[in-house]
Amino acid sequence: MYKYLYNVNSPEDLKKLNINELDVLINEIRKFLVRSISKTGGHLASNLGIVELTVTLHYIFKSPKDKIIWDVGHQAYVHKILTGRRDKFDTLRKFKGLSGFPKKCESDHDIFDTGHSSTSISVGLGLAMARDIKKENNFVISVIGDGALTGGMAFEALNHLGHIKTNMIVVLNDNEMSIDKNVGSVSNYLLKLRTNKAYKKIKNEFENITNIIPKIGNAVYKTADKLKDSVKYLVSEGVLFEEMGIKYFGPIDGHNIKELIETFNKIKSVNGPVLIHVVTKKGKGYRFAENEPDKYHGVGPFDVEKGIEKSNKESYSEVVGNKLVSLAKENKKIAAITAAMPSGTGLSKFKEIYPDRFFDVGIAEGHAVAFAAGLAANEIRPYFAVYSTFLQRGYDQIIHDVALQNLPVTFLLDRAGLVGADGETHHGVFDLSYLNSIPNLTIMAPKDKLELEKMIELSIGIKGPVAIRYPRGEAVELQSENIDLKLGKWEMLKNGKDIAIIAIGNVVKNSVKAADILKQKGFCITVVNGRFLKPLDENMLKHLSEKYKYIFTVEDNVLTGGFGEKVTFILSNLEFKGKIVNIALPDIFIEHGSVDILYNKYGLSSEKIVDRVLKEINIGR
Amino acid sequence: MYKYLYNVNSPEDLKKLNINELDVLINEIRKFLVRSISKTGGHLASNLGIVELTVTLHYIFKSPKDKIIWDVGHQAYVHKILTGRRDKFDTLRKFKGLSGFPKKCESDHDIFDTGHSSTSISVGLGLAMARDIKKENNFVISVIGDGALTGGMAFEALNHLGHIKTNMIVVLNDNEMSIDKNVGSVSNYLLKLRTNKAYKKIKNEFENITNIIPKIGNAVYKTADKLKDSVKYLVSEGVLFEEMGIKYFGPIDGHNIKELIETFNKIKSVNGPVLIHVVTKKGKGYRFAENEPDKYHGVGPFDVEKGIEKSNKESYSEVVGNKLVSLAKENKKIAAITAAMPSGTGLSKFKEIYPDRFFDVGIAEGHAVAFAAGLAANEIRPYFAVYSTFLQRGYDQIIHDVALQNLPVTFLLDRAGLVGADGETHHGVFDLSYLNSIPNLTIMAPKDKLELEKMIELSIGIKGPVAIRYPRGEAVELQSENIDLKLGKWEMLKNGKDIAIIAIGNVVKNSVKAADILKQKGFCITVVNGRFLKPLDENMLKHLSEKYKYIFTVEDNVLTGGFGEKVTFILSNLEFKGKIVNIALPDIFIEHGSVDILYNKYGLSSEKIVDRVLKEINIGR
Repeated sequence: MYKYLYNVNSPEDLKKLNINELDVLINEIRKFLVRSISKTGGHLASNLGIVELTVTLHYIFKSPKDKIIWDVGHQAYVHKILTGRRDKFDTLRKFKGLSGFPKKCESDHDIFDTGHSSTSISVGLGLAMARDIKKENNFVISVIGDGALTGGMAFEALNHLGHIKTNMIVVLNDNEMSIDKNVGSVSNYLLKLRTNKAYKKIKNEFENITNIIPKIGNAVYKTADKLKDSVKYLVSEGVLFEEMGIKYFGPIDGHNIKELIETFNKIKSVNGPVLIHVVTKKGKGYRFAENEPDKYHGVGPFDVEKGIEKSNKESYSEVVGNKLVSLAKENKKIAAITAAMPSGTGLSKFKEIYPDRFFDVGIAEGHAVAFAAGLAANEIRPYFAVYSTFLQRGYDQIIHDVALQNLPVTFLLDRAGLVGADGETHHGVFDLSYLNSIPNLTIMAPKDKLELEKMIELSIGIKGPVAIRYPRGEAVELQSENIDLKLGKWEMLKNGKDIAIIAIGNVVKNSVKAADILKQKGFCITVVNGRFLKPLDENMLKHLSEKYKYIFTVEDNVLTGGFGEKVTFILSNLEFKGKIVNIALPDIFIEHGSVDILYNKYGLSSEKIVDRVLKEINIGR
Repeated sequence: MYKYLYNVNSPEDLKKLNINELDVLINEIRKFLVRSISKTGGHLASNLGIVELTVTLHYIFKSPKDKIIWDVGHQAYVHKILTGRRDKFDTLRKFKGLSGFPKKCESDHDIFDTGHSSTSISVGLGLAMARDIKKENNFVISVIGDGALTGGMAFEALNHLGHIKTNMIVVLNDNEMSIDKNVGSVSNYLLKLRTNKAYKKIKNEFENITNIIPKIGNAVYKTADKLKDSVKYLVSEGVLFEEMGIKYFGPIDGHNIKELIETFNKIKSVNGPVLIHVVTKKGKGYRFAENEPDKYHGVGPFDVEKGIEKSNKESYSEVVGNKLVSLAKENKKIAAITAAMPSGTGLSKFKEIYPDRFFDVGIAEGHAVAFAAGLAANEIRPYFAVYSTFLQRGYDQIIHDVALQNLPVTFLLDRAGLVGADGETHHGVFDLSYLNSIPNLTIMAPKDKLELEKMIELSIGIKGPVAIRYPRGEAVELQSENIDLKLGKWEMLKNGKDIAIIAIGNVVKNSVKAADILKQKGFCITVVNGRFLKPLDENMLKHLSEKYKYIFTVEDNVLTGGFGEKVTFILSNLEFKGKIVNIALPDIFIEHGSVDILYNKYGLSSEKIVDRVLKEINIGR
């Protein structure tokens, strides 16, 4: 079935093949990707788009001596296949299995761990300058998508690179997409380079005129000759990059292995910083993915023949999107913002219905936050829906541009807590900590779908900034009737006499279930939904401190600076003399794996909560 | 002495003057600035540079209906003078006095509070889009320096602005400086625009050739004509901005009021986003400041005739710079990084002696952190010296690019804690909180100069990331003999039987002094230097918990997620039954004023620590 794929176990094996054989290999890799990812799930479309480019890089350069940095890194599957990890793809993104991103611990060919966007030029430049300090000699190649290029950090790095002028290769993998269709003026600019008509036209006309002029006379000829150089410089494609001190080559066809190999062979001898513009098609070679590359960006298991089938389950992202649409109908001042993820954050419908109040700012979380602050300072009420881990990029702006002036911006932190298969770089487990120390902010986390909707409603009446965090995936429904949500008031879900558990967010359901199990064992457990981290319900906490000898807290956030530590602090102030037990994530980076496995490993599953309660009670006896 | 200055109490008064009168006023403003700032201290050079530009903006536009946003905001003094605040300049940056930055609470003309760099285009675009949603009609003008333009967020905003194409004016105030001399390829590009020779040459040559061609014949003429348009577009200055969809005008002389007024009058009728490149001279009109604009960026009181006299006092920044220089001599792998502040962070000497291992990345903290990670991943040992509040911009990168891979990058957090006159936006009071929840990080804060030096030495042997925070200003010396600094070990400074105070960083000295005062009142106080936040000295804490009924913590960080809460948490785990009192900053933004006044107001002065101790003991009796 595969002629070459199983012979290639390292980049050295790849180098033994000729161009025609590479062509066959490329097709085999695509077939392998589709079959393998259809079983495990994973990032499909971006990897299908980058097969020829990855083969070329490993064909031309000598990894790991030459250092290839994959921006974001979800497109590194082909790189993994070519560097000895093909046979581990059945474990992809599973607990203890192959990571979906580059990981130094997996292979010497993975130079740097990635996951967030727009870091590769900065990191590559660091590697290159370290090389120069050590007087070593190797290539550094940063592979960055056109989406990631909209991140300001990529620009900061280009500004530094063009200034410092060391040898470094930036490969711009231009597929016109972030996860969704790409936006921004740089994106328009790249489109112009791709289509290339204006430039070609000028070039041709210039040739016309200079072909005629020499016949006229010497004075004109000399002028024309000088002009030729100047115009040649000015009409060169990529002037945006050239003006920043970086030599531009391209655009070249990213699916033509011959052209790729020829170009990269030439590039090797160019001195100074270089940017190669490679045009690829996301999803290339698998028709469903070519047609709907956003849908096939990150996928669960699917049928290769049928493609992805629509899920009936409503995600928290969809709940948020639908709620915002319905609120925006009533309230003309509501606006929605995304950083390059309208579909991922559930905002596609809002985008369609209220295009004038919808803003996709590109992969630019810092700008998104300050832009939201500007909207809010001029009486608009912005909702910025963003993955918890990516909002870390806007941390300073939350403090400096939003909270300082107490502006009513609402942050909708999607994929808060453990996210599962994406692992370390994507878990949203720091947000309660980094948000809680910011003055003026209201912070809440719902236990289920209905509460999330109510919290979004509540946020409209709050005169300052608000953060609402909710998990990845299917929205659970613990409660269907109307709930009474008041600012800063927790909710008593179960009332028992023995011990109290206060949980926040997604792990409220685990705590309720734990209480049910404990009831069967004869314990009567109070379960409180600690839905507000800030303001925290000190009255209820006082009540609990007077009634119980054991108070447990449960959260899917790191312990330090999180919910449990704050509760402990207040109980200490209340001079609570009982036992406080904080169940939270430890002070390490949490690996990838299913959320259930990770909950179990880190003590957040209902079973583990039961165990912990029983253990502490036994110690206390 | 002043002919017009005291007649201008609002922008309306300004509009009554003619150009010649404006010229006189401009000189008067400069004189006022120098005299006033020489008495109070403040930001001098940047304000001297922007007098004509500010006068022009208030002459042409109708503030506050038209909205002027000052990037960073330290250059808004002239704006404050023109909007009714001239007579408050004797209170500048003093407690309860005029702020050194725009503040909405001071005036309707201050549209948005600023302090950090590169936010103005994002905020301006937010204001503009809110205007469009509300179908209102006004100008939005963001005034940004060439230094601030190197911040990635400014690029993210330009990318969005060029795409969305609403009416907005970006004024590029190009003085070739951040606080220090500006760096980066965009800076080089702006220089090219300023000097302008290449472009002028092409333009002239093009005129030559097209003047001749028409005589030749019709076919060539037509080609030439088409070429003319194309080349005209391509040779236009500002192609970098034009390619991003933003119309470029300039460069214009920022000290020629006539040219400024004419240009801005024209600009008013241009549709879509516009960038005006205004060339100014930092320090303009005061010879000392013109010659050394970095030295006259932010100043204390000085003699107008003599200029600033050199201080004999060694600052913490200088201690750090000198220590790094001496370590770099021994260790060839040590590198130093600054984000546009070599002098402010004490790195000027390092820059001079080890230029190959010194990196000024521009105002680009996110890139600085990821770049450092790249260096560290290739065996170099980077030290990134940065103001605590500005490192907030690199928060995600600390987690994602440094800590995740446990890379040995050391963050030197200058101006941690309260900074005094710069106020809200510059206090470094969140760092202990935002750093402590990051895995793999070692976090320390010295009590004095010698300990700071020892901590930098210690960091070299630590295999992961390190953060060392130290305050603004003169380095205190509490100890001169050799100190014994071991990772994670606190230091017992005084041993008394009654109560224990654990302090961290700059407030150790206040706590020692408080203990001395309390001793005179008959109390024997233990004072512990809690120099490591992470790893924290749990052994000593256990010892303290067994010995004392009262444990106080003192820190110049916000309470939430800081040192005191962590100590409280551990004491709770140790089942400490005594009283814990956490002295820390409250959950608000702290205003400007001298550090001593603020320490006193927020309970961190030695006197206030004494009061608090006495109060708690009395309650306990």
